[in-house]
Amino acid sequence: MIHTTEIKVKFSDVDPLHIVWHGNYIRYFEDGREAFGEKYGLSYLDVFANNLVTPIVNVNVDYKSPLEYGDTALVETTFIETPAAKIIFNFKIFNKKSNKLVATGTSTQVFLDSKSKELFWTNPPFYVEWKKKWLGI
Amino acid sequence: MIHTTEIKVKFSDVDPLHIVWHGNYIRYFEDGREAFGEKYGLSYLDVFANNLVTPIVNVNVDYKSPLEYGDTALVETTFIETPAAKIIFNFKIFNKKSNKLVATGTSTQVFLDSKSKELFWTNPPFYVEWKKKWLGI
Amino acid sequence: MIHTTEIKVKFSDVDPLHIVWHGNYIRYFEDGREAFGEKYGLSYLDVFANNLVTPIVNVNVDYKSPLEYGDTALVETTFIETPAAKIIFNFKIFNKKSNKLVATGTSTQVFLDSKSKELFWTNPPFYVEWKKKWLGI
Amino acid sequence: MIHTTEIKVKFSDVDPLHIVWHGNYIRYFEDGREAFGEKYGLSYLDVFANNLVTPIVNVNVDYKSPLEYGDTALVETTFIETPAAKIIFNFKIFNKKSNKLVATGTSTQVFLDSKSKELFWTNPPFYVEWKKKWLGI
Repeated sequence: MIHTTEIKVKFSDVDPLHIVWHGNYIRYFEDGREAFGEKYGLSYLDVFANNLVTPIVNVNVDYKSPLEYGDTALVETTFIETPAAKIIFNFKIFNKKSNKLVATGTSTQVFLDSKSKELFWTNPPFYVEWKKKWLGI
Repeated sequence: MIHTTEIKVKFSDVDPLHIVWHGNYIRYFEDGREAFGEKYGLSYLDVFANNLVTPIVNVNVDYKSPLEYGDTALVETTFIETPAAKIIFNFKIFNKKSNKLVATGTSTQVFLDSKSKELFWTNPPFYVEWKKKWLGI
Repeated sequence: MIHTTEIKVKFSDVDPLHIVWHGNYIRYFEDGREAFGEKYGLSYLDVFANNLVTPIVNVNVDYKSPLEYGDTALVETTFIETPAAKIIFNFKIFNKKSNKLVATGTSTQVFLDSKSKELFWTNPPFYVEWKKKWLGI
Repeated sequence: MIHTTEIKVKFSDVDPLHIVWHGNYIRYFEDGREAFGEKYGLSYLDVFANNLVTPIVNVNVDYKSPLEYGDTALVETTFIETPAAKIIFNFKIFNKKSNKLVATGTSTQVFLDSKSKELFWTNPPFYVEWKKKWLGI
C-alpha cells in the first residue's frame, strides 16, 4: 500500500541556507501519512473516532539532496506490515521537477486508548478490522 | 504593568533573507504575553484553571527593523486597561545588543467559557478579581 | 485583482484548544499572497529576479471564527491599489465547507534593493511595469 | 563533552493531544546543538565564519514520554567522536521537574564549502583545529 502526495515548498519552510529547514521534513512525513490515512481510513480523525490515539514513538530521516523555494515535493508513503501493535510507514521524498531523491525516512506509531492513555500491547479491534479489510490478514 | 522577556533568535526562526521570518513575531508576542501572565497570574494555565479560554481576536504588527540569527530580542509587554471584557496588550520588541526598536504591536483577547465556548460580554469573575488585585479597580 | 487559494489544515497547525493556532494565519496569508504572485508575476522569486526584496512592514489579522483539523481554508487575496511605493493585500479566509468567514486581514510590503537593502521611496521600474501591464496605470 | 540547555515549552509547541508535537523535538535538538556550539566554538556562525556549512544528513528521535505545556525540557547534548568528516551528537531530553526521560536521539552533519557547496570527504582544517583544541587529538 503506497500513496503519493504533493507538497509545495513554502517561503516559511526555507532556512538561511536557502533550503527547506531539515525539521520541516517531519511535517512533510506527517502530511504524507495523513494523506495515506485519509485514503485508507487510517487518519488521525479515523483512529480518534475509534477512541484511539497513535503517538509517534520513533522517527528517522536521511537527507539526500536539498529542496529549495519554488520546488514541489512528492512524498511517497508506504505502509510496512508488522505483527506488532504498531503502525510503521516508510517515506521517500522526491523533487517533482528533477525526480531526484530528496530524503527517506520512517515513522513508528503505537496505539493508546484516547481516554485512559493506556498502551495497547496487541492490536486494538479497530486495527484488526482495518488489516482484514485492506490487507486480507 | 510592564514585563520584559528575552528571546534568543533560533536558526529555524530565520528566513532566506537572513532575518527573522515576519510570522515568528506572533510567537514572540505570545512568549511576552505568557511571561507577563506567569508573573501576574494571567497565563493560559491560570485562566484555564478558572474554566476560561482567551482566544486572540486581533493581532497587529508593525515591523521597524530586522532581527538576525545571533540576535536576542527583548519583548516588552504592556497591559492596556479597558473597561471592555477584553485583554489588550501592547508589545515593543528591541534588539538587545543595539537597543534598536524592531517591532511594535498589539494583541486583543476575549473570554470564552472553556466548556460551553460561550463569549463573556462582561468581565468574568476571575478577571474582575484579577483587576481588583493588580490594578485596584 | 483577486485570487483564491485552498489550504488544508494540518495536524501541526492546530493548538491545544483544537483550533488553528492564531499565528499560523500569517502563513496562510503568505500562501495566499504567493499564489496571487505566481498567477500575476509578483511572487517572491519574480521580485527577487528583479533585484528586489519586499519585506512585510505591517500585518493585521481579525479572527472571526475558528478552523479545526479536517477543515479546508479558502484564502481570498485582493490587491489594493495605492500610489505609494508599497504592495498592499487584503485577505479573507473562509471555511470551505461552511462558507463561514474565518478571518480578515491586511499585509503591507515595501521595496528594497536586494543588494544594498536601500528602500525605494517611489515605485521601482519593475513595479511601474507591473502596474502598467495588469492595471493599465 | 556534554552541554545541557533548558527549553520552556511554548503554547505553540503543543498539539491537539496537549503534548509537544513530535516534530518540535527536532528544534529542541537544534537548540541543544547550538547551545553546545556557542559554548565550544562550533555554532552555525562559527562554522560559517570559516566558509563552511554543516547540513544535517540524518536525524533520529525516540519518544519516551510526553512533554506538556508548562513543562521545561532539559536537553543534554553529547559530542560523539568519529574519525569520519562528520559531526555527530547524541541528545537526551528530560522533563526538568520530574527528571523523567522524554526523548533520545542523534543528529549527523557533514561539512560543505559554503560557496562551492562541495562536500568535504576528510575533516576541513577548521574542524581539525577544533578537535586538537578541545579533544587533544
